[in-house]
Amino acid sequence: MTAAKEARLAMRSGQWTGPTKHKVPGFVKCNLVVLSQAYAYDFLVYCVRNPKPCPIVEVCDAGDPHSKACARGADLRTDLPKYAVYRRGVREGDRTDITDLWSNDSVAFLIGSGMTFDEPLERAGVPKMQTWVLATTIETVASGQFHGPMVVTMRLMTPAQAVIACQLTSRFPQYHGAPIHLGDPNTIGANLAQPIVGPPLNTIPDGMMPVFWACGVTPQQAALASKPELMISHAPAHSFVTDLRIDEICTP
Amino acid sequence: MTAAKEARLAMRSGQWTGPTKHKVPGFVKCNLVVLSQAYAYDFLVYCVRNPKPCPIVEVCDAGDPHSKACARGADLRTDLPKYAVYRRGVREGDRTDITDLWSNDSVAFLIGSGMTFDEPLERAGVPKMQTWVLATTIETVASGQFHGPMVVTMRLMTPAQAVIACQLTSRFPQYHGAPIHLGDPNTIGANLAQPIVGPPLNTIPDGMMPVFWACGVTPQQAALASKPELMISHAPAHSFVTDLRIDEICTP
Repeated sequence: MTAAKEARLAMRSGQWTGPTKHKVPGFVKCNLVVLSQAYAYDFLVYCVRNPKPCPIVEVCDAGDPHSKACARGADLRTDLPKYAVYRRGVREGDRTDITDLWSNDSVAFLIGSGMTFDEPLERAGVPKMQTWVLATTIETVASGQFHGPMVVTMRLMTPAQAVIACQLTSRFPQYHGAPIHLGDPNTIGANLAQPIVGPPLNTIPDGMMPVFWACGVTPQQAALASKPELMISHAPAHSFVTDLRIDEICTP
Repeated sequence: MTAAKEARLAMRSGQWTGPTKHKVPGFVKCNLVVLSQAYAYDFLVYCVRNPKPCPIVEVCDAGDPHSKACARGADLRTDLPKYAVYRRGVREGDRTDITDLWSNDSVAFLIGSGMTFDEPLERAGVPKMQTWVLATTIETVASGQFHGPMVVTMRLMTPAQAVIACQLTSRFPQYHGAPIHLGDPNTIGANLAQPIVGPPLNTIPDGMMPVFWACGVTPQQAALASKPELMISHAPAHSFVTDLRIDEICTP
């Protein structure tokens, strides 16, 4: 049995409820969004129109909680360690199982996670580092009721590391791909004093360059802003572990 | 005015009704599929599930014939040189204008065309050459009523050219990207004696290697097999000329 399948079964049985970040090395992670069918078309078009923040890896059939393309046999209702549940845009208590919330009308979207390139970056000499999640003033392309600003992930690195990061993440287009910006945060309206995730930052350390990637929080925020009756996602940092191997998907 | 816009206006006015293949150098070409909204969700999921043959460049809003992402101001009802019209899967006479067939219910999909990389291939030393369009026995991933075998484009080249072609077309993931196969056509069930387009071929010339790319005829055939009341596409080789510049989109 692969480490990915083993991890999912531990999640299914309730033994594993912690984060998947930096866990199960070698396997691609995906973010989950579950919406009812009434929202599915506009949400899918939103993702297609904004491929950098919303790279779709799989869309399941309505009512079908099983991933076919990236994790055969997985059940998306039980095989993530923790889920966030939102009703009309308000977050309820997290859960480790969403079987009772699932219906014939539920559509699961798996969206590539930037976590996927953490490991290859490290192997390429860019060490694991603090990340910040920041709002920007870049507007995404709307679809139906879905719209909103792009959210980005920022890392601070040397210019030499930034070059390697551009080269390497370009090879992962379904996992946010190349950075969307380098350097001055103000250019994209990112306010380092008020990050969504990460410690406030007043100055950029000398010799370090901010590097910004489109972030999977973008489609989640766009979905929430439309206040759907029910939306389910992975809890932050508790992404779905697929059977896809990072070293096999790193080409367009 | 750019050459792309000039070309589209000539098509709009009816002056240009011929092919766009190898015309308007420097600009990206897209294939067009128009379906009614009832088919749009399943067709879009089909494309997302099969990104190599069906790379979506743009989905227009229902009823809106204007491209926003890749050709501002273009009208998809008039700005292609020639359209193929299919009723319940049967092709009618071609047209140069589909304004009278358009309704509030029409959804236009622009799908990346492999024509896009002909030019950079030539610049990289792989000369313009005969192409064949072939059916294969590779099944695409179904979505609703949409399913069917992958159709491929084949070129014959030297092994050295094939390496360049792999490298170069990898940089165009939204335009079919890297080849799906090299070498023996039988491996993918392609019958060179019975191509869909191109002269029958009994033997592969010495020193030449067949190189196969996923082809945009795939989604068209999948759509036709479901016999929609009305489907409109570009007439073969009469693709839509966008404002996107080939040299600017050649990264993931």
